[in-house]
Amino acid sequence: MVAHGGGAWLVYFTSMEREEAARAEAGGVELIHPADFGMEALRREGKTSEEILAAAVNSAFERAGTEAGRVVLAGRPPAGTALALARTLEEGDRQPMSGRGLMLALRRRKTRKEIEGIAAAARTTVAAFRSVAGALAESSVREGEELWLGEERATVARVKALVAHVFATHGLEQPESSIVAPGEEGATGHSTGTPERVLRAGESIVVDLFPRGRLFADCTRTFCVGEPPEGLVRAHGLVLEALDTSLEAVRPGVRGWTLHERVCRLFENEGFAVPDKNPGTQTGYFHLLGHGVGYELHELPSFRKTGPETDEFAAGDVVTIEPGLYDPDAEWGVRLEDLVVVTTDGMTNLTPLPYDLDPRSW
Amino acid sequence: MVAHGGGAWLVYFTSMEREEAARAEAGGVELIHPADFGMEALRREGKTSEEILAAAVNSAFERAGTEAGRVVLAGRPPAGTALALARTLEEGDRQPMSGRGLMLALRRRKTRKEIEGIAAAARTTVAAFRSVAGALAESSVREGEELWLGEERATVARVKALVAHVFATHGLEQPESSIVAPGEEGATGHSTGTPERVLRAGESIVVDLFPRGRLFADCTRTFCVGEPPEGLVRAHGLVLEALDTSLEAVRPGVRGWTLHERVCRLFENEGFAVPDKNPGTQTGYFHLLGHGVGYELHELPSFRKTGPETDEFAAGDVVTIEPGLYDPDAEWGVRLEDLVVVTTDGMTNLTPLPYDLDPRSW
Repeated sequence: MVAHGGGAWLVYFTSMEREEAARAEAGGVELIHPADFGMEALRREGKTSEEILAAAVNSAFERAGTEAGRVVLAGRPPAGTALALARTLEEGDRQPMSGRGLMLALRRRKTRKEIEGIAAAARTTVAAFRSVAGALAESSVREGEELWLGEERATVARVKALVAHVFATHGLEQPESSIVAPGEEGATGHSTGTPERVLRAGESIVVDLFPRGRLFADCTRTFCVGEPPEGLVRAHGLVLEALDTSLEAVRPGVRGWTLHERVCRLFENEGFAVPDKNPGTQTGYFHLLGHGVGYELHELPSFRKTGPETDEFAAGDVVTIEPGLYDPDAEWGVRLEDLVVVTTDGMTNLTPLPYDLDPRSW
Repeated sequence: MVAHGGGAWLVYFTSMEREEAARAEAGGVELIHPADFGMEALRREGKTSEEILAAAVNSAFERAGTEAGRVVLAGRPPAGTALALARTLEEGDRQPMSGRGLMLALRRRKTRKEIEGIAAAARTTVAAFRSVAGALAESSVREGEELWLGEERATVARVKALVAHVFATHGLEQPESSIVAPGEEGATGHSTGTPERVLRAGESIVVDLFPRGRLFADCTRTFCVGEPPEGLVRAHGLVLEALDTSLEAVRPGVRGWTLHERVCRLFENEGFAVPDKNPGTQTGYFHLLGHGVGYELHELPSFRKTGPETDEFAAGDVVTIEPGLYDPDAEWGVRLEDLVVVTTDGMTNLTPLPYDLDPRSW
């Protein structure tokens, strides 16, 4: 909260939040102890969480000395807490409004420090892909086209364990999970992969990693050990062309939607269903070309046709570019995704890695 | 949504949610495709997310044939979305209410299948602790009392990497992170551990793991390699006594608050600050004795003195019992936590592991 004419301050609710709050304090934000707002006393009196919240909000406005007016709410509290908060504000003659758009807009252009946070997570993501490619390159093919890593079957879980080890070693977490989706699972575009599923030679393996350090990174590669099906090879070439063309076009003044439409036309001309002409399709191309990345995995700018922050890229935007093609009938999917920072005259690619299907070419 | 006299059905919003929705379908819930409510068309028309949500809600009530009345909201949407939803409901003469209490109450008593999901996550958690204890038992002590694992320093990140590997291998994720907190970090009770911090001989190492499979598990042990400080040894004995006494008392008809108070008295009699007598203390004992565990890490029953679901345990409750003592000045903390299912005549411990500080005794 920023008081009129004063500095910023932050109220925390329980002593368990003190450490997290202390990081804000280190950034020059004054901390308000829960006891200062009488919250612990109210809890001891048996007040409900909603009553305690209401009391804290009213104490905060009193301290800030603000008049009636509009108040924006951000974050993701339980829906009932948001309702209770809105009622408290309305009773105090204040109009609660959504703060999500404002917060995402404020977060859109990254500072140098934020870009370094994303780049650090991206560097470890690159290392994780190297680890996966290395393991797949050394895998052996046994009965039923199963891939083995040493004397163990190469399951989805085993590949995720390689990745988890790299991330944890570098202090990254995976609060949003990760995707290692072979064959039919990668063909749906949104399966995270069944842990016990054994990877096989000749099938696509979509690996999409999105760990968080201070901020998130996001990168996808698609592998195939052994002989890929013809359709997969062709689709991989097209997806790579779409990625290359899009990356070359990223610069201030270009809209995400424009790039997305170009990719739709490229794929459509090659006979694939595309989302702007075939909405709801479950085959071909069926998602947007990219999204902003930051403190959340999906931030702004938006690649949609219309809506908030769908305008031209600007320096400091950090976005993914991730074309993909999927064929659930043939049971393959291919997606290639790079994470880039928009610079004054183009972009910097934060995930420089090979694009080859064959991990032995990496 | 359950229509009057009809079966349950679920509306999903984008094709990317289809797979997750399909799991509900497999459970006998009818799926409503977003196109059936015209949502994709509205998105193409450039309607805002709030307008699309409002249209979907009104379509859902129309389909259900419900009259005006109370509607409970659960989940954690962005606060602005909850506000928009509440306004849509109010305009339709419906009263939005918090559904969180209802949802948590419904989730409290676990089914046999849910208990099996928690037990499966707990078994892997036990394996992860065995891995950590094994590594610490084999660690060597080098200059400055640093612990080394083979030819590498035993950092917090390295221990978390061991854990992450075990969890990922078994298909578990860590959406809520994990705690490996040495010395002064474990002494605050809420630090998750600084990745590059090197573990040292003679200091406490609090390891609190809470992975998620279908449901969560939660377990804590405290280690010390080499000679522990006297205060730590004494506190460890008291915490173990508190845990043992509490576990023996867990059965239907006992309140969490009663067990918590008993632990407070035990620690108070030994000269430690305790939360019911010294609220806000940052030394001694300063959290509750336990919490329910399920689809979220913190569920019901509650161990609080007053409030929802603070009544007696009942068969099917799954709770943690986690006494702890902390001394920020002496830079040690000790917490021991087991996860138990309340049965008709007592409890089953899902995290059977040694409690020793010394990993070589494991």
